[in-house]
Amino acid sequence: MKEIDFKWPLGFKSDGIHIGLRKSKLDFGWIVSEVPASAAGAYTTNKFCAAPTALTKDAINHGHQLQAIVMNSAIANSCTGQQGRSDALEEQNLVAQKLEIEPTLVGVASTGLIGAFLPMDKVKAGIQTLDQTSNFKVTEAVLTTDTHPKTISLEFEIAGQTCTMSGFCKGSGMIHPKMATMLGFITTDATIDGDLLQTILSEQVDLTFNQITVDGDTSTNDMVVVLANGQAKAPTIQDSSEDYENFKTALHQVMTYLAQQIAKDGEGATKLVEANVSQAPSPLDAQKIAKAVVGSNLVKAALFGEDANWGRIISTIGITDADFNPATIDIALNGHPVVQQSLGLNFDEDTLKQALQANKITIDINLHDGQATGQAWGCDLTYQYVQINASYRS
Amino acid sequence: MKEIDFKWPLGFKSDGIHIGLRKSKLDFGWIVSEVPASAAGAYTTNKFCAAPTALTKDAINHGHQLQAIVMNSAIANSCTGQQGRSDALEEQNLVAQKLEIEPTLVGVASTGLIGAFLPMDKVKAGIQTLDQTSNFKVTEAVLTTDTHPKTISLEFEIAGQTCTMSGFCKGSGMIHPKMATMLGFITTDATIDGDLLQTILSEQVDLTFNQITVDGDTSTNDMVVVLANGQAKAPTIQDSSEDYENFKTALHQVMTYLAQQIAKDGEGATKLVEANVSQAPSPLDAQKIAKAVVGSNLVKAALFGEDANWGRIISTIGITDADFNPATIDIALNGHPVVQQSLGLNFDEDTLKQALQANKITIDINLHDGQATGQAWGCDLTYQYVQINASYRS
Repeated sequence: MKEIDFKWPLGFKSDGIHIGLRKSKLDFGWIVSEVPASAAGAYTTNKFCAAPTALTKDAINHGHQLQAIVMNSAIANSCTGQQGRSDALEEQNLVAQKLEIEPTLVGVASTGLIGAFLPMDKVKAGIQTLDQTSNFKVTEAVLTTDTHPKTISLEFEIAGQTCTMSGFCKGSGMIHPKMATMLGFITTDATIDGDLLQTILSEQVDLTFNQITVDGDTSTNDMVVVLANGQAKAPTIQDSSEDYENFKTALHQVMTYLAQQIAKDGEGATKLVEANVSQAPSPLDAQKIAKAVVGSNLVKAALFGEDANWGRIISTIGITDADFNPATIDIALNGHPVVQQSLGLNFDEDTLKQALQANKITIDINLHDGQATGQAWGCDLTYQYVQINASYRS
Repeated sequence: MKEIDFKWPLGFKSDGIHIGLRKSKLDFGWIVSEVPASAAGAYTTNKFCAAPTALTKDAINHGHQLQAIVMNSAIANSCTGQQGRSDALEEQNLVAQKLEIEPTLVGVASTGLIGAFLPMDKVKAGIQTLDQTSNFKVTEAVLTTDTHPKTISLEFEIAGQTCTMSGFCKGSGMIHPKMATMLGFITTDATIDGDLLQTILSEQVDLTFNQITVDGDTSTNDMVVVLANGQAKAPTIQDSSEDYENFKTALHQVMTYLAQQIAKDGEGATKLVEANVSQAPSPLDAQKIAKAVVGSNLVKAALFGEDANWGRIISTIGITDADFNPATIDIALNGHPVVQQSLGLNFDEDTLKQALQANKITIDINLHDGQATGQAWGCDLTYQYVQINASYRS
């Protein structure tokens, strides 16, 4: 398992262009596989699932295969009713025609303002312009308030043969995934059956994307899709094999990295916040507590102020419906103990203040009430977050 | 039913003083009834229930009677272990000695920093200093980041006889009550049995204090207590009588007013936000949706920016586990329709911008899927909120 410079796995091409949805930044793109790829997806649980998200879910459920995904930023095509569904469908069909493949092999993804319609003339012209290149412009074309593309590539072995897995995603606000987060795309040239891929993805989503939060709001367009096109010509990965474990580890690493990147690039954020819960009664208890702590506005604002206000952390733990012993909790901030047996320690304020100036804050919470662990990632709450969201539409 | 200038009901006295917990503001006080009063309470569901809150709960459960409540701001006496419990108990005993009553007739309430111990020398001296006056200083002595006292008095009739009900509360941050909010106290000179009073209080808490949110964080010290001392000498209120309805209406009005005041005075807030959900399948569905909408950081920041970003409102509705038809929702902002049948309307942006400059924003949400209604209150999310909470301890 080795992290390498970002590149597309064998047999994947892409492009990213400007079609006029945003003022000047790239806003439209696609990824295309030479051959149909095994596909798995996880989607928002928001009841107002956006038209493109629903369409992609249908396409993947059809045969667990995709060959291309077309995507845009600026407009979410969500809460757009029948017109929105027609627009997404037309986009899917036009891409299928251009690639001369079945429409059910094309996924569609949109992100941006809820309630606005896609300008289909621009979209149609854009589809005609898209090329199959080795550039990475599509990783920019999906961004909204993100400050930079979020990408990772790994090399891993399947039966002694090197495969590549590459992931990218967008997401900065409205981040509190319940199934997946706002547009994550992972490609690999390994060979794996779609059903098995879906099983691994669903399991890993719970441990990674579903454990981040920026603002407690779950988007209507959330979607993470994995494509495996087999072009490394490695043997097919079998369930419960060593290859399976390798693949799962690679996917876990890619998804954890992307999840952390989203949290770190949370709207207005200055710090990545990681909560590590240990010795919990169950993994679910640990995950609930970790996610609650990184999601508390009061904890987030205190960390922005570099204030070791542990009372807010323990109070947040107390609100959850997780199982734990309220009398045996230890808490440390960036390695400095602040709470032992649920009582505050006499720590040195200056030392803590200095420790909290770091760009990454780790909150270690030991419940001393079991053996399970759980993690979650978030960011601090800043003036900038308010500024960005007070005028998002203008 | 008539709102009057704030005053204590017959047979209640109080005082508020400075004992050095805060720099110069009042920080210690009590309310005292001439005779033991019927008492009912609602308390935080945070698993780290503070020592004073737990003690008051025990005292009220003992015989549904209280004669005095002593209270302080600045220090919450929460997460303070055995020492915290001893301190609260000593405070209760000292007040009982001074008043020459049973300790179980004394409630104790604290609010402020979690994890700090009460300086008992200052508390003891304070108890000696407290007087029984007609002033309202105690309504100031409980404040922390609140910008002003929150008080209300009503006159109402029981069997033709005039009774008074007066409520005050504190609360500005860490507001997302699950049973009651941060320190609310209601006194009345009406006569009512403690059990019946508890029934009415519990019902009304769900409709009022439990429907406000400032930041999604539930405090460890939440408590609302009602005292009825019978000193108006009106007949005892009987279950299901006309008097019962009058009393319940008065209590509902007092609690709704105080709940709104807390939301309006939310940390850093510039606007009170009220969500009115109508035609819902059940009251619980309506309440869930209303509370989710006023609790969304994205909705709150958009309203601070006076931006009619209805997509965030509908997306928030979609995250709830409430039952509703996603295709039939109408939304209006301060009376201006922005969504019909779940689709955006072509509203005039300037008109909306102007309407959203008001100090109170009303979000009307008609689900067209039943007959039930529900309300919730919150505030906008501002730079000031972040500022206050980045440096709360300093």
